[in-house]
Amino acid sequence: QLKNASSSSKSDGGSSSGSESSKDSSRCSTPVLDAERHERLREKMRRRQDSGDRWFSLEFFPPRTANAAVNLISRFDRMGAGGPLFIDVTWHPAGDPGSDKETSSMIIANTAVNYCGLETILHMTCCNQTKDDITGHLQKAKRLGLKNIMALRGDPAGEEWEEEVDGFNYAVDLVKHIRNEFDDYFDICVAGYPKGHPEAESYEADLKHLKEKVLAGADFIITQLFFRSETFLKFMKDCQAIGITCPIIPGIFPIQGYHSLRQLVKLSKLEVPQEIKDVIEPIKDNDAAIRNYGIELAVSMCRELLDSGVVHGLHFYTLNREVATTEVLKRLGLWKEDPRRPLPWAVSAHPKRRVEDVRPIFWASRPKSYIYRTQEWDDFPNGRWGNSSSPAFGELKDYYLFYLKSKSPREELLKMWGEELTGEESVFEVFTCYITGEPNKNGHKVTCMPWNDDPLATETNLLKEQLEKVNRRGILTINSQPNINGKPSTDPIVGWGPSGGYVFQKAYLEFFTSSEIVTALLKVLKKYESRVNYHIVNVKGQNITNAPDLQPNAVTWGIFPGREIIQPTVVDPVSFLSWKDEAFALWIEQWAKLYEEESPSRMIIQYIHDNYYLVNLVDNDFPLENCLWQVVDDTFELLNSPAQQ
Amino acid sequence: QLKNASSSSKSDGGSSSGSESSKDSSRCSTPVLDAERHERLREKMRRRQDSGDRWFSLEFFPPRTANAAVNLISRFDRMGAGGPLFIDVTWHPAGDPGSDKETSSMIIANTAVNYCGLETILHMTCCNQTKDDITGHLQKAKRLGLKNIMALRGDPAGEEWEEEVDGFNYAVDLVKHIRNEFDDYFDICVAGYPKGHPEAESYEADLKHLKEKVLAGADFIITQLFFRSETFLKFMKDCQAIGITCPIIPGIFPIQGYHSLRQLVKLSKLEVPQEIKDVIEPIKDNDAAIRNYGIELAVSMCRELLDSGVVHGLHFYTLNREVATTEVLKRLGLWKEDPRRPLPWAVSAHPKRRVEDVRPIFWASRPKSYIYRTQEWDDFPNGRWGNSSSPAFGELKDYYLFYLKSKSPREELLKMWGEELTGEESVFEVFTCYITGEPNKNGHKVTCMPWNDDPLATETNLLKEQLEKVNRRGILTINSQPNINGKPSTDPIVGWGPSGGYVFQKAYLEFFTSSEIVTALLKVLKKYESRVNYHIVNVKGQNITNAPDLQPNAVTWGIFPGREIIQPTVVDPVSFLSWKDEAFALWIEQWAKLYEEESPSRMIIQYIHDNYYLVNLVDNDFPLENCLWQVVDDTFELLNSPAQQ
Repeated sequence: QLKNASSSSKSDGGSSSGSESSKDSSRCSTPVLDAERHERLREKMRRRQDSGDRWFSLEFFPPRTANAAVNLISRFDRMGAGGPLFIDVTWHPAGDPGSDKETSSMIIANTAVNYCGLETILHMTCCNQTKDDITGHLQKAKRLGLKNIMALRGDPAGEEWEEEVDGFNYAVDLVKHIRNEFDDYFDICVAGYPKGHPEAESYEADLKHLKEKVLAGADFIITQLFFRSETFLKFMKDCQAIGITCPIIPGIFPIQGYHSLRQLVKLSKLEVPQEIKDVIEPIKDNDAAIRNYGIELAVSMCRELLDSGVVHGLHFYTLNREVATTEVLKRLGLWKEDPRRPLPWAVSAHPKRRVEDVRPIFWASRPKSYIYRTQEWDDFPNGRWGNSSSPAFGELKDYYLFYLKSKSPREELLKMWGEELTGEESVFEVFTCYITGEPNKNGHKVTCMPWNDDPLATETNLLKEQLEKVNRRGILTINSQPNINGKPSTDPIVGWGPSGGYVFQKAYLEFFTSSEIVTALLKVLKKYESRVNYHIVNVKGQNITNAPDLQPNAVTWGIFPGREIIQPTVVDPVSFLSWKDEAFALWIEQWAKLYEEESPSRMIIQYIHDNYYLVNLVDNDFPLENCLWQVVDDTFELLNSPAQQ
Repeated sequence: QLKNASSSSKSDGGSSSGSESSKDSSRCSTPVLDAERHERLREKMRRRQDSGDRWFSLEFFPPRTANAAVNLISRFDRMGAGGPLFIDVTWHPAGDPGSDKETSSMIIANTAVNYCGLETILHMTCCNQTKDDITGHLQKAKRLGLKNIMALRGDPAGEEWEEEVDGFNYAVDLVKHIRNEFDDYFDICVAGYPKGHPEAESYEADLKHLKEKVLAGADFIITQLFFRSETFLKFMKDCQAIGITCPIIPGIFPIQGYHSLRQLVKLSKLEVPQEIKDVIEPIKDNDAAIRNYGIELAVSMCRELLDSGVVHGLHFYTLNREVATTEVLKRLGLWKEDPRRPLPWAVSAHPKRRVEDVRPIFWASRPKSYIYRTQEWDDFPNGRWGNSSSPAFGELKDYYLFYLKSKSPREELLKMWGEELTGEESVFEVFTCYITGEPNKNGHKVTCMPWNDDPLATETNLLKEQLEKVNRRGILTINSQPNINGKPSTDPIVGWGPSGGYVFQKAYLEFFTSSEIVTALLKVLKKYESRVNYHIVNVKGQNITNAPDLQPNAVTWGIFPGREIIQPTVVDPVSFLSWKDEAFALWIEQWAKLYEEESPSRMIIQYIHDNYYLVNLVDNDFPLENCLWQVVDDTFELLNSPAQQ
């Protein structure tokens, strides 16, 4: 008798704890076991099926412009929060899909995996391409950490289909090629046609082609869209009858508008059933009505599929839109409103980062930058950088990398951060408005900062009152977390990791401030020696600290049933110096450069950049009341005392 | 400005937490910083001097018999608890000092370092030995993990001193040889003679020889005994005058008896001052009076030395006795009554084990066996066995290895464990008496068990009442620890590690029990799934567990200022199977073999060995009240319920 404690319902995804922004909503996948982090997609699918746990996936296409790409990535983050098992990105032969352009299929899929932490399938078509081209694309995908390919034929170049000798003529050729050249590295998905491929001689012949694709090495099938659940259920039965045993996932297309439906139907050569036409035609100019009908239709069809007992997962053709699909998923109860997270930060889905379970707290609000700067690291021994004393962070020079770009355009930022600054105090006010959520004096809310691209995180809200007070006086906070003395790992705000555990935090505060305040602070800190660890550094790298040696200080950790201790967030003195460069540069790159050169506004930001210090404080006594606010109060008191005047 | 949070007064040594015995009193050294674990002896000495922290060290000689060796090792454990900076073991050329005999200098020093965790200096003499012999001894010492040598000339073979050409004639030759052959590997100590060496031409000439030894590479000096503090202080001044700058440690000889004093004086050719003779002669037949006088004398001389301000450490010639030296140290305030420990178990002083900071809980009461079985491990990546899934424990076949031997002789064990057993119940009674401390029915206290060579640990005393109850009913406990939810690291019972931290434990219970009880227990455990992890195994290796995968479960951990989390004790499923072999074998090796073959008593133990299960339970919910007692109660209740009859 050997039992296993399975069924712990642990999950991926979630907003970064310990951060001042709700960013890092790069939540990934679904409620899972620890094991899932190490599983291949086909294994995850099998396990979910075995446990009777239903799932969904989302299909996106690459956008046309860089701005649209930035928006799509935010959408990945938001929709990733619902817990898809995977997303997939289509391949547009006309759009240079394998290139390094911000809008290429390859780069969008790369971003989804590496920066949003989503399990991702990259589509790939093979017709009209040489073997070398295809192999090159696949090698690149592998290099970028992509692990799953949807192998497709693609559309012929001309009107009529002509077979190329020695070329790739069918998806099955691509499947064989992938297995020949890359062995078992990729999970391979192929397309199924519930009504038969429009160009197939017959439905039966098409089923035979599908079986060939599976025999050639495909791991599972996603179907073309269809309008009636019977269509899919019959198709599935027919597949099984000829010996196709791999998972077959129905492709769901929630009707979102009259024109998009017509276009899709034309492309796919499908016929819309008369009963649907009858409803749509009369309301074809009422988008909202069509969408509501589409949602109803999709929900009821999905319910029939799930109730059949043979369908475990649903694949959604989103058309890059959010509302309809999210609504369908919520009504079906598949959207995970509060997916618990395996770690307090979003886990990257890159295979080489699987074992990563420690990160410096500094990048809590900029996880994509952290991933970018550590992308060259070859492995993560002990779950982190190889040697903490030489982490060798990559340079971050291009603050305009599209996945680091602010979602807000320049005009918006100027409204939030001030068209014209009149002194350091106007900077204090910007920080204060960001914390309070109150509009600034021109009536604009400050919803992001150079260090935080999203509004204040729920956890940080707990500290709001104190944060407001100190920002108003020139302690410009960019990162903080409260202390936590053993809350359940399922706590909706601060919880993470498997259920049944307890999570802990040391209070943390990170801010920019003037040298006057630093001088007083250092006097005050003498009273707190050993209780409070501090690192104080300016842009030139002058570094004041009481940290013993160069050891990291664990500031977030968790204790779980039957596990070793996990300590996913640390204050690491060495990486702080790499973070310092980035944190100071953001003043200039994101803020100062909004203004004309030589303008007073720009000079104010430049002054702060040149003269302020970046400070971080840790209160080691996590079971007691957080003393960092007392440290700051004492500092202001000292500054106001007569002896200081 | 770069400050350091020094002065954290962390310490070594201490009794093993999480164990049913107070064993593992192999405490080592003194209150120290973490750094000390990585420091060489000479660096520790320097740091203690710099910080004004006074210390002591203890000299022992190798005993003549194996039984005496077992006793000496217990003495190392007990005296190690007082926190010596090091101990040293003398070299007896006549006693085959470099051999593998249990009583050789080499093996006694090896035991002190590896099994008692004591910083150790091995003496070595050089006269009448070949270079190859000496090199061989040094190589062996290095291989065993010894890091410090006291380089001595030794006594001449005949009455008169004859110089050997090409041989080692003086200690300085040995110092040079060590530095030539082993570079800086060893710390070298040499002897100083406050009155001059009896064979030296003059006091001045002897000082010159001493300086030569230091110039040749000696790191510090320990002096011959003396009777007046002025003698030492003058000697020290004279040394400094001729440029000897290394530490000079006074050798203190507390007079313990008339005859030992006379013998020592004869050997060392020293003269006893008249004022001492005047006191001793009249009381020469009163041992207690002489010892009390000796203690008084030593204390006042040591006070003078320490008050001089130039003496930082005191070296004691113990003559392998405990009482006098311990008393002097206690009166001087140098004996650390409650030395805090860097980890909850005693740290081995072997250089390759320096980074070791994780151990399975199973060997908590048998740390010497754990060290023996892991002595071949080459390194301790992540502070533990290289790959936890293949720890490759060495076999433990020889239960009579002298450092694993019970301190009690066979007759004693029979009195405790029963001259004649009448059934399983008489075994239950032995376990119960061990727990309660009450005498057995023949009036003998049970002070040790095959799995615990020492009486119940202080920590386990907290569980006494419950332990008594369950042992009486056939849950034969051999290891347990209470849960702890964040006690200060300075807690006198459960604390360990640097000050300012917090320590935690999950409740743990390990016991042998019958298959009937196991069957009921398994039913009960269903109710506690995921809260309680269990491993249940019999001698044949049938293994029942609910542990996920083969991951270790951390059961002791600590959170410290400015540090990463430390989790020094784990329940590791893989190593449990190695422990199981040892735990079952101890029934036979230590208990069954006390009785005649085929005797009923022996057959009872053999029956238990063959049929009982070894069970361990962890309550993962450490912040709640320990549920393991409830688990056991529920089990008994189930066994008593009518449905079970």
